[in-house]
Amino acid sequence: MTLTERLDFYRKLTEDALTHALSSENEQYYPSIFKAARYSALSGGKRLRPALTMEFCRVCGGTLEQAVPFAAALEMVHTYSLIHDDLPCMDDDDLRRGRPTNHKVFGEATAVLAGDALLNRAFETVLDPENTGNLPAETVLRAARCLAEASGMDGMIGGQIMDIESEGRQISQETLMLLQRLKTGCLIKAAAVMGCILAGRSDPETLGAAECYADNLGLAFQIEDDLLDIEGDITKFGKPIGSDAENGKVTFPALLGTARCHELVRELTDNAIAALRDFPAHAFLDDLANYLVSRDY
Amino acid sequence: MTLTERLDFYRKLTEDALTHALSSENEQYYPSIFKAARYSALSGGKRLRPALTMEFCRVCGGTLEQAVPFAAALEMVHTYSLIHDDLPCMDDDDLRRGRPTNHKVFGEATAVLAGDALLNRAFETVLDPENTGNLPAETVLRAARCLAEASGMDGMIGGQIMDIESEGRQISQETLMLLQRLKTGCLIKAAAVMGCILAGRSDPETLGAAECYADNLGLAFQIEDDLLDIEGDITKFGKPIGSDAENGKVTFPALLGTARCHELVRELTDNAIAALRDFPAHAFLDDLANYLVSRDY
Repeated sequence: MTLTERLDFYRKLTEDALTHALSSENEQYYPSIFKAARYSALSGGKRLRPALTMEFCRVCGGTLEQAVPFAAALEMVHTYSLIHDDLPCMDDDDLRRGRPTNHKVFGEATAVLAGDALLNRAFETVLDPENTGNLPAETVLRAARCLAEASGMDGMIGGQIMDIESEGRQISQETLMLLQRLKTGCLIKAAAVMGCILAGRSDPETLGAAECYADNLGLAFQIEDDLLDIEGDITKFGKPIGSDAENGKVTFPALLGTARCHELVRELTDNAIAALRDFPAHAFLDDLANYLVSRDY
Repeated sequence: MTLTERLDFYRKLTEDALTHALSSENEQYYPSIFKAARYSALSGGKRLRPALTMEFCRVCGGTLEQAVPFAAALEMVHTYSLIHDDLPCMDDDDLRRGRPTNHKVFGEATAVLAGDALLNRAFETVLDPENTGNLPAETVLRAARCLAEASGMDGMIGGQIMDIESEGRQISQETLMLLQRLKTGCLIKAAAVMGCILAGRSDPETLGAAECYADNLGLAFQIEDDLLDIEGDITKFGKPIGSDAENGKVTFPALLGTARCHELVRELTDNAIAALRDFPAHAFLDDLANYLVSRDY
């Protein structure tokens, strides 16, 4: 399979799992929350996190069946964070992936609850023995814990609060690095690490390499995202260009200049790829790292 | 121990666990989210759900140590739902338990994130082996799943969306029963059932009796709450009297009349108590049921 074929394959598996997880017999009584959750969860997107979980699991000798529920759960957590980030009291965005944001379509109250529901459903999904009963209970607990820690106050939510509080203020490069590592890095790291755990590979060397790859990849990806907000094309980017500056966000290009940012993206990507040199088969993950920062897709 | 002594004892254990769970080394970098989470989680409250988990666990032969992390997690889920319910886009309430609501003190963005953080922390807490490593992995998974299902789209969040969508509309008694069973009943049922599971008692008779007790208790409690919104005293109730009618909420007294509601509270309480007749020691749970609907505390 080529890189894009494999990504499409993983995307299809993720979207099937999301469709299944976000349906219920209770839709007859209160359909709007399920519609709102599916609207955002199935609105396209690269499905980067699920791809990392499935690929790390595969490379470590696990099966797709073991990885899919956790891959879908990661995407539910990611989606809920976008819905809440877009709310009027947060970034107040009208567009996401080229479509009206959740609260623009369903109203604020339903958008808040749809976000809550997606976060909760992530845990329901990985704790359901119908999905994960084929794994040892200890493995499910360990991987679920990894997800919970990455998405909480000491992970993604910590990054979101730092982001809000630094709006319109000058912050240092170190603070911006911490903010981005928490806000987007933690979940990307969890995606890679969970893949290894689910395949039964929890030795410190394996998890350390996966973490190092994901940490570098996550930061490269974020800097590239900041660059696209300046240099990008709205038809590919899916949201208005220049919205970071408009929202008073401190970005890497603003702190370091665009030339240095392009260099840094290259360095971080090379570091990511180097971290996997002792991994059994890492061609797809190497290609993925290069692909994610080229963005000619 | 008397009823109130035991409730105080359980409350203290819950609040110690909450204080511990909502602290972090990361407070030095972004203190506001931890402050906001503790503000609402440690603002008093009856701690009914934790008391049910600890007491059902005790009655079924388990230890307090086994029950406390799940009791605290339940309270985090309950607290997050109150923070999000109070938001301007939801019920738009300024007071909760006699104090300004979370968004009034910390702003809307932080309140949304503090709610998210509390929900997430509930799962972090029960999945952390430092808290629950003394239990078999299968037991942790089963109890955590019980929590996740009760608080999700097919449980509490389902009730919240029904509540929002029925505002200002006429709904039937059956619909109101379903709404309340989901919105408040599911979490109360999970509190009782989790206590049994944590003590290693997962036979259908035990879980069925615990569910029946909690289902009747939850509904009685809700009807009593509706009555207090009409007949209550703001200094005891902690929020403005008459706010249900003002918010266009359909309540049991509006549908059935206050006289029938008082009768129903009595019947449901008696049913709750009767459900436990084969339980080993149920004096505290009997007293608790009577106490909760007397509200002379």
